[in-house]
Amino acid sequence: MISLTIQSDTKKEYIYRQIYKQLKKEILLHHFLPNEKLPSKRELAQTLHVSVNSVNGAYQQLLEEGYIYAVERSGFYVEKLDTIPLSQSLPQSLDLDLVEEKESKKDWISFSHMSVDRSIFPFDSWFSCEHRALKLSRLELNDDSSRFPQGIYSVRKTIARFLSIARGVKCFPEQIVLGGGTQFLFYILRHLFQEDALYAMENPGYRRMYELLQMEQVRLRTIPLDNKGISIDLLKQINPNVVYVTPSHQFPSGVVMPISRRIQLLNWAAEKEDRYIIEDDYDSEFKYETDTIPSLQGLDSYGRVIYFGTFSKSLLPGLRLSYMILPQKLLKKYRERCSFIMSTSNALGQLTLKQFIDSGEYRKHIKHMKQVYIERQKKLIDALKKRFDSAITMHGANAGLHFTAEFDTPRTIDDIAERARAAKIELYNLKPYCLDGSYLYARPAFILGFANLSVDKIEEGVERLYHAIFE
Amino acid sequence: MISLTIQSDTKKEYIYRQIYKQLKKEILLHHFLPNEKLPSKRELAQTLHVSVNSVNGAYQQLLEEGYIYAVERSGFYVEKLDTIPLSQSLPQSLDLDLVEEKESKKDWISFSHMSVDRSIFPFDSWFSCEHRALKLSRLELNDDSSRFPQGIYSVRKTIARFLSIARGVKCFPEQIVLGGGTQFLFYILRHLFQEDALYAMENPGYRRMYELLQMEQVRLRTIPLDNKGISIDLLKQINPNVVYVTPSHQFPSGVVMPISRRIQLLNWAAEKEDRYIIEDDYDSEFKYETDTIPSLQGLDSYGRVIYFGTFSKSLLPGLRLSYMILPQKLLKKYRERCSFIMSTSNALGQLTLKQFIDSGEYRKHIKHMKQVYIERQKKLIDALKKRFDSAITMHGANAGLHFTAEFDTPRTIDDIAERARAAKIELYNLKPYCLDGSYLYARPAFILGFANLSVDKIEEGVERLYHAIFE
Repeated sequence: MISLTIQSDTKKEYIYRQIYKQLKKEILLHHFLPNEKLPSKRELAQTLHVSVNSVNGAYQQLLEEGYIYAVERSGFYVEKLDTIPLSQSLPQSLDLDLVEEKESKKDWISFSHMSVDRSIFPFDSWFSCEHRALKLSRLELNDDSSRFPQGIYSVRKTIARFLSIARGVKCFPEQIVLGGGTQFLFYILRHLFQEDALYAMENPGYRRMYELLQMEQVRLRTIPLDNKGISIDLLKQINPNVVYVTPSHQFPSGVVMPISRRIQLLNWAAEKEDRYIIEDDYDSEFKYETDTIPSLQGLDSYGRVIYFGTFSKSLLPGLRLSYMILPQKLLKKYRERCSFIMSTSNALGQLTLKQFIDSGEYRKHIKHMKQVYIERQKKLIDALKKRFDSAITMHGANAGLHFTAEFDTPRTIDDIAERARAAKIELYNLKPYCLDGSYLYARPAFILGFANLSVDKIEEGVERLYHAIFE
Repeated sequence: MISLTIQSDTKKEYIYRQIYKQLKKEILLHHFLPNEKLPSKRELAQTLHVSVNSVNGAYQQLLEEGYIYAVERSGFYVEKLDTIPLSQSLPQSLDLDLVEEKESKKDWISFSHMSVDRSIFPFDSWFSCEHRALKLSRLELNDDSSRFPQGIYSVRKTIARFLSIARGVKCFPEQIVLGGGTQFLFYILRHLFQEDALYAMENPGYRRMYELLQMEQVRLRTIPLDNKGISIDLLKQINPNVVYVTPSHQFPSGVVMPISRRIQLLNWAAEKEDRYIIEDDYDSEFKYETDTIPSLQGLDSYGRVIYFGTFSKSLLPGLRLSYMILPQKLLKKYRERCSFIMSTSNALGQLTLKQFIDSGEYRKHIKHMKQVYIERQKKLIDALKKRFDSAITMHGANAGLHFTAEFDTPRTIDDIAERARAAKIELYNLKPYCLDGSYLYARPAFILGFANLSVDKIEEGVERLYHAIFE
């Protein structure tokens, strides 16, 4: 007979729980034989000096969980459990190479093109929009996200109206699919194209999208840029089905595609049934010396453009609010094939965004950020010119939150990257964005982002940059 | 010479903008010849009776956007633009079959297993956690989500600690990948298995996952259940590499997998190197008559279990906060292959969740919801028994937010579904969850969810159900 220890001080634990836990452990440790009969409830109660009720509670629990089974008019028997090595409450150790670096970026100066300056984000008005959203939209919040794989309808309505004014994008709310990031949206989109479609990307280009396409094992080519953006001649030679472009502010080079190239691109797409253009308008809100050249989507009357947008740059990357706009033909396929895929986009965030746009706060915020960014960009360019003189060549500063710079220096790009890290500047070079592996620039070239670079840090940042590149 | 109309009332629009816009339109309409020389700035200024500055502003803008080009010491020329059909500001119409139904669910009674009752969600404490998160974690919010493809580290630390207490799940924060929903996480996971892996799912089972696997065109089989969950004998026959199970509360049948089956399953996985179990613990927080049987992940000392969890059921589906826990071997592959994929999970939501758990609010909320759900479940079962008597058989009410019921009725399942809709009850039948297309039940069977069914609606709901099924 197994010995159990019962503490009758019930402040500690119910007696039935004590019996249950100890019996469970004994069973798991195979201290019973498989199919061994347990003592009757009355018998065990007597042995332990507890009530039959307590034993009954323990047996019921064990029965429910499958440690024992009951045989009518006979009693309870121990389940035959296979042997299993009982694992510890925590794995002994994590492999050293899996441990995450917890390096603090305090005191660093950021030239990252990926972050924005949260210190000037209007959290107060965002939160008051959130409260309003909750008050006004409880019914919509009450609906299942599963019923809205494309995102909440009223939110899409607001986005459609806003895009028509701000970007000349024309669409019905029905055409918008909201998601927690461009990559997941692209994953969905891929299933709307023919399976053996040939994809093409600009080179240099957006590496995260390139890696996604590689992982998906699609047929993939890259197309070099000329001074107007993606080369039309090479596009026609390669003849893809789907071409991914960033016309508003080519990533990473910063080239703004002129109207002539946009029209050529659209006309190329229109020539054949199965040609599509993905227009990623990732930082479309910020133009400096150009007005808004119409988006490809706005010019397109063939239904060949899929427009990708995001609020990561204009609001906060962490909000994960992105969207794609499908032409009607692809929307049909989406509804047939993909509407079982639930939205990855936070419902409360969606409704807050709607309030933020509808109340005019978004427009106000963009206007403010534009001023902030113009000032930062101008001061950064001035400081760079002053410090580097003829040793720097800058490109792509007409729009967006970054430009590129080549430096006339004897140092190698890797050397500079290493020294930048040591000097605590967050600096991205253009090597990873040369998608085919061969470096496309004559000299070491870098992305200089200024969205997370406050004015008072510019001089120090440029100084650190100079030391990393030259001294 | 093109005629332009300038309104000198500058309250309307800057003069340079008027010139710019009209010239742009004329160029797009091909009212100029390609490469036609524009009048000199001085000449146009005289003709229009405006300043040379205004004309200069317009020409600069057109130049930047690529409508015209400059030839040194000669002047400005119109760019050669290809013809393009100019599209309307809005597409004429949306195809009727693409229009979204905006049916209101007001006055409906919901037996949905997918929604929860937002009216009792503690929004006030959620928001105060949000404010605290913002105050305490500004630095973490300031980091790029791209640097955290797995989600914010401190949030994962909280989740790991919480899971170890609540579910016996043992992991390091490094092993957790956060995402905006289970489907996207699964999409990532798939790339960590061998490419020709054979997948198996429980039948009946979770349709959305089944459809995802089908879309991904993986090799896929289904395995029937017996009274302990997925059949081990058939599992051994089919011999998959990856098996997806819902042991805590099988979806949709509600079977709770007993400890003996769990051990068998783990031992099966341990037999070969390339066998994995995906344990989807989708509504793990809610147990009624069973204590918490250890999760497979907690029992696993082979590193073969991938644990999926979500806060959709315990908090709100719309928050889109899910996670998976990778064994170290798969984590290594994830880091090599997939860390370029950005998280789909909202950073502010993550940090708020951390505060919500750390402050004890989460535990309080779960405790409260458990009471609420136990009451609803009990009242619903009582009402069903009373109304249907021997014509109903219920299963799977030991845990979770739904159970299943078969009805002894001459009506067909489709007929009942139709009538339920007409009677304004949201009711899901088990047909779609029979994954191989053949119906697995002897009689019409339905999912009865009670998470969004307030106590005062139960009687009316059961009454409507009765009419749909019998009258």
